[in-house]
Amino acid sequence: MKARVTVMLKTGVLDPQGEAVRHALGSLGFQGVNGVRQGKVIELDLAETDAAKAEAEVKAMCEKLLANTVIESYRVEIL
Amino acid sequence: MKARVTVMLKTGVLDPQGEAVRHALGSLGFQGVNGVRQGKVIELDLAETDAAKAEAEVKAMCEKLLANTVIESYRVEIL
Repeated sequence: MKARVTVMLKTGVLDPQGEAVRHALGSLGFQGVNGVRQGKVIELDLAETDAAKAEAEVKAMCEKLLANTVIESYRVEIL
Repeated sequence: MKARVTVMLKTGVLDPQGEAVRHALGSLGFQGVNGVRQGKVIELDLAETDAAKAEAEVKAMCEKLLANTVIESYRVEIL
């Protein structure tokens, strides 16, 4: 079973990486980019075959390792 | 208009970051993780209101800046 985790900085947390991308896009001539936020996506290939159990396990992984829940929010999708 | 770009290393390209995550999950006691791939997600807030034009523009951004198309593949979603 495959799972995808998307980790983004929470709203209000400064995102210098996103700001750098926004700036670079402007320099390359792309107009009308009002904001950019950059996060990470983690695709997991799990042995677990039960979707509910897999989701619970992946959420535990997020809490323990994949996301810093003080400043980041995460979203789990089971594919 | 909002757009989301997901950039992943192409299949076959070694992903040391993903491997490190897989290893760390194993150390934390998470069994049955067969593979991990890590990529990045970029959320763009665009002034463009036409979905087709926005998608074309974001694809151009990917080709020029956001993805290294030699080793990375990208996916554009207009939200």
